[in-house]
Amino acid sequence: MPSAATGTPDVLDANETHALATHATLPVLRIRGGVAVRETLTDTLAEETPVALEYNGISHATLLATPADLEDFALGFSLTEGIVDSLQDVRDLSLREESGGVVVALEVSSASFARLKDRRRAMAGRTGCGLCGVETLPEVLRSVRPVSAGQPISLEAVRAAQRAMRARQALHEITGATHAAAWADAQGNVRLVREDVGRHNALDKLVGGLARAGMAASAGFIVVSSRASFEMVQKAAWSGAPLLAAVSAPTALAARLAEDAGLTLVGFLRDADCTVYAHPERVRLAP
Amino acid sequence: MPSAATGTPDVLDANETHALATHATLPVLRIRGGVAVRETLTDTLAEETPVALEYNGISHATLLATPADLEDFALGFSLTEGIVDSLQDVRDLSLREESGGVVVALEVSSASFARLKDRRRAMAGRTGCGLCGVETLPEVLRSVRPVSAGQPISLEAVRAAQRAMRARQALHEITGATHAAAWADAQGNVRLVREDVGRHNALDKLVGGLARAGMAASAGFIVVSSRASFEMVQKAAWSGAPLLAAVSAPTALAARLAEDAGLTLVGFLRDADCTVYAHPERVRLAP
Repeated sequence: MPSAATGTPDVLDANETHALATHATLPVLRIRGGVAVRETLTDTLAEETPVALEYNGISHATLLATPADLEDFALGFSLTEGIVDSLQDVRDLSLREESGGVVVALEVSSASFARLKDRRRAMAGRTGCGLCGVETLPEVLRSVRPVSAGQPISLEAVRAAQRAMRARQALHEITGATHAAAWADAQGNVRLVREDVGRHNALDKLVGGLARAGMAASAGFIVVSSRASFEMVQKAAWSGAPLLAAVSAPTALAARLAEDAGLTLVGFLRDADCTVYAHPERVRLAP
Repeated sequence: MPSAATGTPDVLDANETHALATHATLPVLRIRGGVAVRETLTDTLAEETPVALEYNGISHATLLATPADLEDFALGFSLTEGIVDSLQDVRDLSLREESGGVVVALEVSSASFARLKDRRRAMAGRTGCGLCGVETLPEVLRSVRPVSAGQPISLEAVRAAQRAMRARQALHEITGATHAAAWADAQGNVRLVREDVGRHNALDKLVGGLARAGMAASAGFIVVSSRASFEMVQKAAWSGAPLLAAVSAPTALAARLAEDAGLTLVGFLRDADCTVYAHPERVRLAP
């Protein structure tokens, strides 16, 4: 398995074995005020690549993702989707390019693999597919373990983390096309940021990166540049972080899940304005 | 199969058999300028529901979607994902509520069902899952049929359609949480709008709604309130519409697919500004 990095998040970034292009320059026609701007002929766009996740040789899911931090992505996905319980269940992980995409091959413990096969067998001949390899309604709405960390978090820390995250969205800065997920400590110091064209992927990368660095998500909170849908809350709650702050709107299903999971859910985070949709008791307004 | 509506799009809206709530009111803590606003204690949030798609009794994919226009969604998904070739392949469609979600049961032609089974069998024991029921890299990057409609479309028509779409995003207006996809005729008159918490779902609903109404997408163009990722271009190209205009950024993979598919791809559409990422020859700047 990938060695659990013991250093700072920047060490993780440097450890990436596959350096695939995360953006590309393409010829474009730019129009300003209804008039073609002839002198600006290229633009920088975020890359997007099909990423297939294979467990013990069995293809499980293919998702479109930004080809960066794919080890974090595969580990985070495996954790938040309940395929493995911890990084100890991942024996090996390798990336290979294939057919215009990337295959991430994971070798997981026999217990994890047996469970994955059981989940599939439970579908009783239903060759179902879909939401991240999850097929049936009850499985989509599977229970999350409740968040227990109870320490209050100041609104000021959440705002500081949002500002710091924005300053570190390198790919978004040049493409305008990617979402970010960041983890900050309780004082609002951002320790890890991950970007992806998909918001779920950005969060999975963050969770995987935290696990690889041996950082406990429960000691801080998560900020995302996107909306907070059901799956975002599901993944955030999995991480143990007690608070998820989203720049944009939550859904009602997400708010209900956050309430049930004991997760504080903040939405529409803009400067000193926001709305708290679940467990507001954890938000401290005074600095 | 659902009868092909012959009337206007508004007739389609009225035809919805399942009236599930598209939004909910929840208690919240609103913070303005760092201070809790005690008098505003509720907020309206967009609903999000797991929707399982079943073909001839076999579960295929489960997606989280806004529970409105689910017949359009199921039909559009079946079309754009290549499960059926036309609505004639759909013999029957019914919705049922189950386990906290909705099951859409479709009965498709034996030819369509045989092909779906073949696609799965081709995976040779790989019980793969993922991206909308698509599992392998080559299948994700499957070819799209090229768009042939060649009529130029004025930037003014695209702008008008965007304004009209914005005015018709009823669910977004009250929740701030949903994306929209609209189809307009070549003059920019919006004829159909669909909303969903997921941008792919909104586009599938639009394509399904157009097919149900017997409207040819090639006679106009599509505007979406979101980014233009690979799957958005794939679905738009499937519809035959010659132009896709997105309010936000495209990805590089999406731009390359649009170029290959003969689809004009407009991004960052804001008032009289935009960028054309593929086939700019179809955009007429003069009114």
